[in-house]
Amino acid sequence: MRVIDLIHKKREGGELTREELQFLVRGYTAGEIPDYQMSAFTMAVYFRGMTDAETACLTEAMMHSGGTVDLSRFGKLSADKHSTGGVGDKTSLIVVPVAASLGCKLAKMSGRGLGHTGGTVDKLESIPGFRTTLDADAFLRQVEEVGAAIVGQSGDLTPADKKLYALRDVTDTVDSIPLIASSIMSKKLASGAHSIVLDVKVGSGAFLKTEAQARKLAEKMVAIGAACGRNVTALLTNMDVPLGYYVGNALEVIEAAEMLKGRGCADLKTVCVELASHLVAMCHEMPLSAARAHVEDQLASGAAFETMKKWIAAQGGDARALDDYSLLPQASVQHEVLAPKDGYIAHMDAQKIGEASSLLGAGRAKKEDPIDYAAGLVLRKKTGDFVQKGEPIAVLHTNDASLVAGSEKTLLSAIGWSPDKPQPQKLILGTVTREGGA
Amino acid sequence: MRVIDLIHKKREGGELTREELQFLVRGYTAGEIPDYQMSAFTMAVYFRGMTDAETACLTEAMMHSGGTVDLSRFGKLSADKHSTGGVGDKTSLIVVPVAASLGCKLAKMSGRGLGHTGGTVDKLESIPGFRTTLDADAFLRQVEEVGAAIVGQSGDLTPADKKLYALRDVTDTVDSIPLIASSIMSKKLASGAHSIVLDVKVGSGAFLKTEAQARKLAEKMVAIGAACGRNVTALLTNMDVPLGYYVGNALEVIEAAEMLKGRGCADLKTVCVELASHLVAMCHEMPLSAARAHVEDQLASGAAFETMKKWIAAQGGDARALDDYSLLPQASVQHEVLAPKDGYIAHMDAQKIGEASSLLGAGRAKKEDPIDYAAGLVLRKKTGDFVQKGEPIAVLHTNDASLVAGSEKTLLSAIGWSPDKPQPQKLILGTVTREGGA
Repeated sequence: MRVIDLIHKKREGGELTREELQFLVRGYTAGEIPDYQMSAFTMAVYFRGMTDAETACLTEAMMHSGGTVDLSRFGKLSADKHSTGGVGDKTSLIVVPVAASLGCKLAKMSGRGLGHTGGTVDKLESIPGFRTTLDADAFLRQVEEVGAAIVGQSGDLTPADKKLYALRDVTDTVDSIPLIASSIMSKKLASGAHSIVLDVKVGSGAFLKTEAQARKLAEKMVAIGAACGRNVTALLTNMDVPLGYYVGNALEVIEAAEMLKGRGCADLKTVCVELASHLVAMCHEMPLSAARAHVEDQLASGAAFETMKKWIAAQGGDARALDDYSLLPQASVQHEVLAPKDGYIAHMDAQKIGEASSLLGAGRAKKEDPIDYAAGLVLRKKTGDFVQKGEPIAVLHTNDASLVAGSEKTLLSAIGWSPDKPQPQKLILGTVTREGGA
Repeated sequence: MRVIDLIHKKREGGELTREELQFLVRGYTAGEIPDYQMSAFTMAVYFRGMTDAETACLTEAMMHSGGTVDLSRFGKLSADKHSTGGVGDKTSLIVVPVAASLGCKLAKMSGRGLGHTGGTVDKLESIPGFRTTLDADAFLRQVEEVGAAIVGQSGDLTPADKKLYALRDVTDTVDSIPLIASSIMSKKLASGAHSIVLDVKVGSGAFLKTEAQARKLAEKMVAIGAACGRNVTALLTNMDVPLGYYVGNALEVIEAAEMLKGRGCADLKTVCVELASHLVAMCHEMPLSAARAHVEDQLASGAAFETMKKWIAAQGGDARALDDYSLLPQASVQHEVLAPKDGYIAHMDAQKIGEASSLLGAGRAKKEDPIDYAAGLVLRKKTGDFVQKGEPIAVLHTNDASLVAGSEKTLLSAIGWSPDKPQPQKLILGTVTREGGA
C-alpha cells in the first residue's frame, strides 16, 4: 500500500477502506508517513468529504492509536458528555453531578479553554485545592464511590488525534466535518463510556455558525457512535448568546452552584435538564419524559448539589466554596458597563462576549498563557431585554485594571440594538440519536 | 503574513497577490515554510485552480528563486523550445539546427528521459564524445559562434521549482494545470530566451490525454510568457502514435540526421517544420509563411544538417557518426516483431510503445537507472497501415536478449486492429499565441 495512492483515491472522490485508513493512521502515528503527505490527504478530505463508513473507520483507528479506558465494570451506566464549546457553557459542572446523583457513572476527561471559549478543567481548578490529575485507580474508584470524576485529558489517549489535530491546525483543515467528528469521537470512544450526550453548539459564539453545519456534524458523530456500538445522542443548542449570565472560571462555578441549589436562570436550566435527561434515559433505558422528571427532582431537592459537593471534595477541592463564594478567587476590580442608549438588545455576538471575558484575563490566546481564575464578566442584560441608557449591562471582573477599557469596548461592540422587542430564540434546535449496535 | 492565511485564502477560492506568492516561494525555498504547509497549499490549488495573474506571479517568483541566464546579447534572436514529452519525440535534434541555421540563437537546457518518454540529453549523449555539461562562458560562446548549444539542466536554476516538484510528486498534486504551467515556464524564463515555442503533446503517449486539457495548459503557459514580456507560441500536437518511426536514443539521432538530410518521414517533418517556422517567425518578426519557406529550404539544401554537424562537433561529439551510423552505439540483438494477423492498425498506444522501448534498456524507471544508448525500436508500420499476418511490424534493438520477450508483449498489446482503414489523424491540433509586452 502506498500513501500517494490513498491521497489520489481521496482526491478523485473515492472511498477508502478500513485497512487503508488503518494504514494511514498507524503509519502517521508511528512517524512512518510524513506530515506533508498527511496534510495533502486532509486537504483532499476537506474538499471531498468522507462517507459515514470512512469516518467511523478513521475514528476507530485513531481510538486504537493509544490507550483506552476500560469502563466495563459500570456496564450501561458509564456515561459521558461533550460540548463543542461555547461562551458561558458551564453545563458539565451541572449535568455531571445531576446524572451522577441518578446513578450514572461519569469518568470524564475535559479540556482547557482556548480563544474565546472556556474549558471545564480551568473552571474546576478555580476551586481551591481541586486536583485535575488522578492516577487511573483513584479515578475509577472515585467514579465507583461518588459517581463522577473529571480530570484533564490523559497523555496516552489517541496520540493519532493529537498529532493530526496539530497538523490540521497549521494547514487550514480544522473545519472539515468528518475530521472534526472523528477527532471528537475518537477521544470519547477511547474514554470508554457506553452512553454519550453531545452538545453541538450553533451560532455566533460557536465554531459552527449555522444549524445545517451543526446538524451534519451531529449526524456524523452519532453515526460513528452507532457503528462502534455506543449509544450517542446529540443536541443542537443555541450559542448565539452566552449560556446563562456568568462568563469566566470561578464565576461559572458560582452560577453552576446556584443552579444546583434550584436558583438557576431559565436558558441554562433548559439546556442542562435536556442534556442530563438524555444521559439518564440512555443509561437507565427509560423514557425521556421519566428521566426529565427525575432530573428536575434532583435539582429541586438539592440532591444533585450534595453529589457535586462530594465530588469536588473527593478531588481535594474545598466544597465550602460552593456555599461561601468568598472562598473562590476574587477580582480586585469590578467595573460596571453602562448602556450607551435606550433600546432592546436585538442580538449579542457571543464570540465577542467570550473575547471580552478572555481580555480580562479569563482566557488564553496561546496554550501556554496563564489565566486569572477570578476574571470574567457577569451579564445583567441579555438578548431580548429592554435597557435604559445608563443602566448596567454587565460587570467586568479582573485583577488588572488596565484590561478594563479594551474589554468594555469589545463587549459593547458585541451588542446590536433595536427599538422593537426581538423574537425569542429557540434554545434546543434539534436532537439527533441512533442506538449503538452492541 | 501567515502561511495558514494564504492556504485558507486559496482553499476558499480566493486569488493570491504577487506579494503573497513571493512570500510562499521565498519562504519555501529558504526552508522557512515547511513541506506540510506547502503540500496543503498545492492540494488546495489542485481543487481551486489559479488565475492567469496568480500563475504568472508564481512562475516569476520561482524563476527568481535561483540564477537566471542572461541572453540579452542575442536580443530577439534568443530562442528556446520545449516539449511536454512524448514517444519518439526527437524534434529538438531537428528544430534546433534548423532554427540556428536561420540565425536564431538557441542556448538550450534539456532534460533526461524518465518512464516511457525519452530525453534530449540522453539522445545527444549517445553520440560518442558529446558533452552535455559546459561552463557558462563556453556555453554562450558556442551559441554565439554556432547558433546552438544544448546542455543538461543547470543545478542553480529555479531551486523553488525543483523542491516544489519533488513535493508534488509524493503528494499527488503533479497534474494541476497552473502548477505544471508555472513549473515549465519558470525554467524556460530562467533560461533567458526571448522567443519560445512550446510543443504541448496530446494523446495516449502524452501525460495530457485530451485536447481540452492540453489547450488549457498551452493557454496558461502562453499567458505567463506574455505577462513576463516574452514571445511564446504553443502548438498542440498529436501524440496518439509515436512521432516518426524510431524510438530510443541512438536510434532517434539517426532519424533526426535522416530528416536533416532531406529523407525524413512525413509526420515528423510536419511537426518539426511547424515548430521551427514559429521560432524563426518570432525571432525575425516575419510572417509565418515566409518562415516556413526558409525552413523547408534549409532542410532541402542540407544547410541545417551542416549546422547540426558543427554544433555536435563543438560539444565534442563525433560528427562523422551523423553520416556513418555504425559509429553510434549498436545493439547486439535485433528482433523482428511479426503481425499476429491481417488487418489495419486502427490505433497504437504510444505510451505502451514507449514502455516497450524502455523495457529494452532505452529508458529509466528511476532517475538513477543506467540506460542502453543502443536500445529501442524501429517501427515498420504505424496507425493507418495495412499489415499482413507474419509481416514485420517493428524491430526491437537491445544488448540484453532476455528483455525481448517482455518488450514484444508490451508492443503487441499497444496495437488495436481493424478490418477497415481508420480515418487519418490530425498532427497539429491547434496553435496558441500571444505577444509579450516588453
